[in-house]
Formats: sequence, C-alpha cells, structure tokens
Amino acid sequence: MAVWILRYGHRRMRDARASTHVALAARALGASGVIFEGDEDEALMERLRKIAREWGGEFEIRHTKSWMGEAERFKKKGGILVHLTMYGWPLQESIGEIRAGEKDCLVLVGSQKVPVEAYQMADFNVGVTNQPHSEIAALAVFLDRYFEGAELRREFAGARKRVAPSKIGKSIISCNEERQV
Amino acid sequence: MAVWILRYGHRRMRDARASTHVALAARALGASGVIFEGDEDEALMERLRKIAREWGGEFEIRHTKSWMGEAERFKKKGGILVHLTMYGWPLQESIGEIRAGEKDCLVLVGSQKVPVEAYQMADFNVGVTNQPHSEIAALAVFLDRYFEGAELRREFAGARKRVAPSKIGKSIISCNEERQV
Repeated sequence: MAVWILRYGHRRMRDARASTHVALAARALGASGVIFEGDEDEALMERLRKIAREWGGEFEIRHTKSWMGEAERFKKKGGILVHLTMYGWPLQESIGEIRAGEKDCLVLVGSQKVPVEAYQMADFNVGVTNQPHSEIAALAVFLDRYFEGAELRREFAGARKRVAPSKIGKSIISCNEERQV
Repeated sequence: MAVWILRYGHRRMRDARASTHVALAARALGASGVIFEGDEDEALMERLRKIAREWGGEFEIRHTKSWMGEAERFKKKGGILVHLTMYGWPLQESIGEIRAGEKDCLVLVGSQKVPVEAYQMADFNVGVTNQPHSEIAALAVFLDRYFEGAELRREFAGARKRVAPSKIGKSIISCNEERQV
C-alpha cells in the first residue's frame, strides 16, 4: 500500500513554506510522492528534489494541471481518494476501513479552499479532529496511523547525508560510501 | 498530564503562518497552550484567541521574553522539557519513558535554529524521524502518541461553533444554546 499526496491549489508566493512542510512531512512519514496542483512552482519543486536526493529514498515530486484528472486516473487504477478535511468523518473511525481495503491512497490536502467536487469524488472525507487546524498536522497524524508507525523506522536508501540520532546533541554524517554526483 | 508548546524564535513577518499552524494543531491535538518566544506578535495571538473562543475549550496563548526562563520555571514545578528535533532520539524509543514519568511536558519547537542550550536543558531531545521535515508535523505525531489517540475524541466545552462530521459534505453548527458575548 503506497500513499501519494495531492496538494490542491498551491500559490507560489503565499503557500511556498506550507507546501514545503507538506512535501517534506509526506516524504519523512512514508509517502511515495507529492503532486502539486495550482501554480507550477519549479523553484519549489527543485528545492524539494535536492533535499530528497541528499537525504535518500525515492520520492516523486511533480505538478499537475488538473487535480480532478489525477484523482480520476488514480481511482481508475484501483486506488482510493482520501480527502483530509475538518468536516470529514473522524480519523479514528475511518482508518480501519481505509487500511482494510489494502489499496493505494491519494491523499488530497488543500491550501486554498477545496471545491465541492473533491468532497464528492473522495472515497473518504476524513477529519483529523473536527477542529480548525493545520493540513500539515492532519497529514502527519494520518500517515502515522496509516503506516502504523512503521514509517518511523524507514531507511532512506542512497542517502548522502544522515543524522546520527542523539539524546544530547546533534550530528550529521556525510555518507562517504555514496558517490557524489 | 498536560502539554504546553514553547515556540522558539517566532518572527512576525516570516513565521506568521507556520506559527498559526503550530498553535492550532497544538490546540486541536490536546495541548493546553502555546507560549511564543521571539517577536511579540499581538495580532497573531489575538487571531488565535478568537479562534479558540469560537471553537471552545481552554487554551492558553501568550508571549515570553525568555524561552530559558520559561523552561526553568516549568522544570522547577516538576515538569519536563521535550525538544523536538531531527537530531534527537527516535520518538518510538522515547515516548514510553516520557509517558511513564507522568509529568507535565513543555514541548519546544523551533522556527529559527534552536540554540545549543536547548539541547542541553531538554530532558528529552526527540526525533520524529531523523529526516528534515516540519515542526508542525513532528508536533502533531508527538501529541497523538503522547495522548494515545484520546485527544481525537476530546470535547471542546463552551464552543460557539462546531462541525457535524460528515462522510460526504460539510456543515458547521452554530451553538445557539451558547450565550453570545
């Protein structure tokens, strides 16, 4: 079961930082890629690709002109569309059914207000609480619940940099065994 | 066991949105309050207080001139300081010990680079993965693990607005039984 994130309505100026958080959290917490809808922000995508190359693993980053087209193609291939929204059905009551389906997930998160069609197309509208908060936080909890913590132990193959976890300080290891390109 | 968030190094212009995400995610996911260090951003805090009043529950929002003073006072009263950092010890290996202590937590999250003294003062430097990502995402996973999901079922007393969870659409209920002030 693999998860991609569909970031709806990215705006180059206003959303650069929040979209960066969405993409990096998605990568760190086990997603396979992020697809941006809205502004085609090549600079943002290149920054993210650079981080992904340095820190390893496979993570797809691309733009789409149509969130609906992406969702349709994804569903046609047998995947499901999960829409994270404060109006949705509680995560704790949805996640069991979502996991039980054993299907790939496309997780839609908005930056701008999400159109009503997204609610209709979604196989699951899911609320990580029904309180106003953060799509980044909601996505993080969703991924941790979806992967049941396995994502926290994930190795990122081919990393040029990695952290040596520490209880007291900080250190980054350059992976010398890795060929620098 | 109660949790407060200490947001280090808030900058009025640059961090307004990310700090809003931190505070709202903290509130939605069971924290008791957020304390901002850095710029004293009264407009941000007032926006957050307004949301907290509308959506109910108790949530403290204030500024401090000294993150270190806050941390010292908190620890003197018997609480512990948890610092979320990609350099820290893995969450899944830390959370058991943190919970077992049954102490209030002050959770330090940076916007700017966090000074070395924070690593030294922290009772736990915790990595929600050791990958570069988002302090908002890290905080969300930490809170969900700390409260073991109980935070998702939390009621927010005195709310003027609440969502009626829905599998297919969206609706907000104005709580008419609530006196409007």
